[in-house]
Amino acid sequence: MKNAETTVAKLSEVALRRWSMIAPGDRILIGASGGKDSTTLAYDLAVKRRWWPDRFEFLALHVETDVGEPQDRAPLEALFRDWGVPFASIRVPVIGRLKPGERMNCYWCSTQRRTELIRYALAEGFHKIALGHHLDDIVETLLMNMLHKGEISTMPPVVRYSKYPLAVIRPLALCEERQIEAFAREKGFASVTCTCGYDGASRRKEVRAKIEALTGGSSELKRNLFRSMSRVNAEYLA
Amino acid sequence: MKNAETTVAKLSEVALRRWSMIAPGDRILIGASGGKDSTTLAYDLAVKRRWWPDRFEFLALHVETDVGEPQDRAPLEALFRDWGVPFASIRVPVIGRLKPGERMNCYWCSTQRRTELIRYALAEGFHKIALGHHLDDIVETLLMNMLHKGEISTMPPVVRYSKYPLAVIRPLALCEERQIEAFAREKGFASVTCTCGYDGASRRKEVRAKIEALTGGSSELKRNLFRSMSRVNAEYLA
Repeated sequence: MKNAETTVAKLSEVALRRWSMIAPGDRILIGASGGKDSTTLAYDLAVKRRWWPDRFEFLALHVETDVGEPQDRAPLEALFRDWGVPFASIRVPVIGRLKPGERMNCYWCSTQRRTELIRYALAEGFHKIALGHHLDDIVETLLMNMLHKGEISTMPPVVRYSKYPLAVIRPLALCEERQIEAFAREKGFASVTCTCGYDGASRRKEVRAKIEALTGGSSELKRNLFRSMSRVNAEYLA
Repeated sequence: MKNAETTVAKLSEVALRRWSMIAPGDRILIGASGGKDSTTLAYDLAVKRRWWPDRFEFLALHVETDVGEPQDRAPLEALFRDWGVPFASIRVPVIGRLKPGERMNCYWCSTQRRTELIRYALAEGFHKIALGHHLDDIVETLLMNMLHKGEISTMPPVVRYSKYPLAVIRPLALCEERQIEAFAREKGFASVTCTCGYDGASRRKEVRAKIEALTGGSSELKRNLFRSMSRVNAEYLA
């Protein structure tokens, strides 16, 4: 195993164990966008399935939309075939579903795609939806929620739906983006990232720059931000 | 009443009420450093004492140290005499109390001064210690604790000591620094701020720049950071 691969594998193992993400017999649906994060996640789960103490099954589901340039799915399918990652794909007309007068935005698109993942999971008997969000995403959402919603909250590593027999898990919660990038480079796969150019992407870029300013690029300080979420000292808050 | 004075008076009234900072018959000791914050606080409490529904007494206590240039207390005393602020002063050899080989730092100095305030309050029968920390201080401490301690905590508007029959109150918790500065300019008092040049001051300056980068100077975003502390969504944390 190479360097970046080991790092990602270990950090995902810690997350899977710390938050008890996998139960025996779980059927896990991976939201596979074609980007580096979920592609890394698919690889990681494919390797882990071979030795993980609890048996589990998984499927990478690509939700194709009518937003942005059409993507060529062939390279992703070839990669997944190589890695032994079962793959399926569905098409959702995200723009087509807008009501007259409504404008396209990132929130709408991601809500629609999430809804389709849930629907597919329920229909096909999956227990978990695994998403590729990493530590930087989680810290960014924390800061965005504090700054824009005035609330301390984020995307947690595990969320159990109350309405459905389903949970969302984020096995890469402890991986930094740079570690995932290093893995993608090491493994030599080109990612097909979101190219839509809507507002959410630019807002995330802005927050990314803010976290850079906050931490001065230090991983330790960024990890402290992450760690602070599990250490809320209610007596010492306003 | 002028503009900045009204702003500070109203925000401090909201804080005093929201966190029930004053009880009938309270004797309040103000930690008066000579800086703009605690000087503003002393003025504000002097005005409020004349009409506040609950009767209270107060005294501004200046804790002089052997750190930095000796300060001329005369201008501060004259100001307080003008405003009807009862004033006292004690001297604490902060450097003199260092054990051999120990180096002076901001943490030591502020701990020593705090200890003296508590000792004085207990000896003289005060119920509250009022400090001049403002919203920027509280948000800065939140970010510093997240970044450096990996913990979500800050200086709260009210802290009750478990060991003593004493509470710390921060009536300016809802005032931004710029509002206090505007008041100081409006009122025309020059502040005798800390001139010690130790490390803590520079670290605080650094965090101040980081918050500037985070909020882009927007008061709304800074107030959202403050507000987030009272809205911790534990279900959506890592």
